[in-house]
Amino acid sequence: MVVARSSRDPFIAPFTSGARLGQSFLIAPRGAPPRLGFLTPMERDEAARGGLDLFTPEELDVERWARGGADPPTLLGNVLSRALHLMELAPAQLALAGQESAGVVRGVCALLEGEGWSFQPGEQIVYRLRKCKTPEQLEGIRLAANGAGAALRLVGELLAAASERDGELWLGAERLRVARLRREIASVMPEHGLEQPDGNIVAPGADGAVPHSIGDDQRVLVPRESLVVDLYPRGELFADCTRTFCVGEPPEPLAAAHAAVVEALALARERTRPGIRGWDLQRNVCRHFEAAGYPTPISHRGTTRGYVHGLGHGVGYEVHEEPSFKEEAGDDGLLEAGDVVTLEPGLYEPEAGWAVRLEDLYALGEDGVENLTPLPTELDPRAW
Amino acid sequence: MVVARSSRDPFIAPFTSGARLGQSFLIAPRGAPPRLGFLTPMERDEAARGGLDLFTPEELDVERWARGGADPPTLLGNVLSRALHLMELAPAQLALAGQESAGVVRGVCALLEGEGWSFQPGEQIVYRLRKCKTPEQLEGIRLAANGAGAALRLVGELLAAASERDGELWLGAERLRVARLRREIASVMPEHGLEQPDGNIVAPGADGAVPHSIGDDQRVLVPRESLVVDLYPRGELFADCTRTFCVGEPPEPLAAAHAAVVEALALARERTRPGIRGWDLQRNVCRHFEAAGYPTPISHRGTTRGYVHGLGHGVGYEVHEEPSFKEEAGDDGLLEAGDVVTLEPGLYEPEAGWAVRLEDLYALGEDGVENLTPLPTELDPRAW
Repeated sequence: MVVARSSRDPFIAPFTSGARLGQSFLIAPRGAPPRLGFLTPMERDEAARGGLDLFTPEELDVERWARGGADPPTLLGNVLSRALHLMELAPAQLALAGQESAGVVRGVCALLEGEGWSFQPGEQIVYRLRKCKTPEQLEGIRLAANGAGAALRLVGELLAAASERDGELWLGAERLRVARLRREIASVMPEHGLEQPDGNIVAPGADGAVPHSIGDDQRVLVPRESLVVDLYPRGELFADCTRTFCVGEPPEPLAAAHAAVVEALALARERTRPGIRGWDLQRNVCRHFEAAGYPTPISHRGTTRGYVHGLGHGVGYEVHEEPSFKEEAGDDGLLEAGDVVTLEPGLYEPEAGWAVRLEDLYALGEDGVENLTPLPTELDPRAW
Repeated sequence: MVVARSSRDPFIAPFTSGARLGQSFLIAPRGAPPRLGFLTPMERDEAARGGLDLFTPEELDVERWARGGADPPTLLGNVLSRALHLMELAPAQLALAGQESAGVVRGVCALLEGEGWSFQPGEQIVYRLRKCKTPEQLEGIRLAANGAGAALRLVGELLAAASERDGELWLGAERLRVARLRREIASVMPEHGLEQPDGNIVAPGADGAVPHSIGDDQRVLVPRESLVVDLYPRGELFADCTRTFCVGEPPEPLAAAHAAVVEALALARERTRPGIRGWDLQRNVCRHFEAAGYPTPISHRGTTRGYVHGLGHGVGYEVHEEPSFKEEAGDDGLLEAGDVVTLEPGLYEPEAGWAVRLEDLYALGEDGVENLTPLPTELDPRAW
């Protein structure tokens, strides 16, 4: 059973074929077709677009509970109880997923437990279904990857056109700030039908050296510093891609780190194929960085300099999904044909104030691996 | 206690001042300052931007649970248990909110219940905190409303520039399709720092007559039909605004409905002030429509023609929040100074295939009501 506040919920979206619903749910009994419920009659045409068997608000008695002034957990609990009854299911164990609000979930579970149902976490079932992409899902990711690529090319062009004045970068008559690049990136997305619901990272210098800092809009860019640009836009599905730029001659440690990261990406790319574990790729890249003198999470647990994070992750209805590149991963740690994964080696020096990360997105097929983000990897924007 | 998969979660966003976090949580004991937890060290700088006391991943022993291969409910449950312990709180009742996934919530609750904690739904506490907007929140809504207004003006301009050929609307050398308007709307949003995470409605003819149908991208617009455009973009907060257009002379029933909706909006606007209940406004507008011969949800429960939905709702960190305009609303049904509400009268005729909806967004102050979406209400785009 999936309960969702919106059909954009990554646990229900794989089943609803782009229909736009608000509060909704899915019940998929073992061995029987799934059925989709929605709570407002105004969404009847949208719900029908999903192509699934439906529970209508009328069948679910939504109006009756709403009129009675039921609080949200009581309303949803009664609606779900009615749906289970309509499917003629006897109380048993339900695997539960979907991003309904926590207090509502707790209340719904209590109500249904009172009727004999019991619950277990169901996220893994959906994650497993989402791991290998269908051709349509891959096409959705490809569209998002193309948009990310177009935005990164535009960033490259703008940086190549920037000029230095008093130690700052200028574009035409204005200082080049992070905000300007973010605005230009955002302007590209609609042409590709994309949104950036989780924002993006445009992180110069020391900001980039903490991998999840998004970068300060007011910061003026300067020559010879690193600029990490990490984009993760969404159409129906997400893409994820990162490049690092440097306008002017990079300081020697940055240039050396960039070379090591380019090598790491090639090394990891070469070994990426169905049948390998993400953790094996991670170990391999860590050995490469360690040999070049950089600390890694394997050589120095919890390090904040050198290589400080995971090598990759699956991408789909969420930016981070299966397969996992973690040591402790189970079956979800195995790369298979149909998976879409990023590889994102990087090197970080918070004290010196620079960072390099390069992230490509790959579709794993039976016959080979396709790079969905075939972009330059050079620091110098003039090489783009 | 709020548990969230992202700091964009509307239950945690009001507390985190725009910091961009992934999985995170907030614990706010009665009478003590709230404390924010995050789970990856890479987000340390972002978390600090929130200005709250923090739990760091190190204090929370995140690494230890992750290394042990704990599943998501066990990991989060143990992290929250540790956080409650660090706050020196003895097991008691926790009000719970936030959009963590349902199976994880169920597992976390089971784990903490084993330690003596009990739970109740906590959404209402956050909704109540979100109802009256701070000046900063109002400013965020104003920015989003300005973007929605700019996009609607652009739609008006494009429609005014369209010409008729063989019964279809053309813009330059191409048929004017819904997709083109959606692309143009999307292109305006980045200039205002906005996204459309829930999409939008661009619904011609019969599509518009089912209020939540988003409209078919491939549909070519034709003269003399209604076109409902409902935008709900988000910066830090959402706005919500709707206009209805008609290129060429509207059929008489559409023109009459439009006049009735304009009157309804003025009528409702006139009575909107702190101290009134949303339901009173709803009743009033229904009486107005009934007197003009249209069915309403009060005169004809469950009607799909005439006036078919609620008059308004609060807007903020979600598109729909308090105050409520429902009959069964309690305290949340009372409009107060600081509230931001929409008023959205409309009339729908699914069989005839037309609709009119006009929706403005208002900020209620002590001294008056500000229309955040001061746009033309004419059907004719040339009047825009």
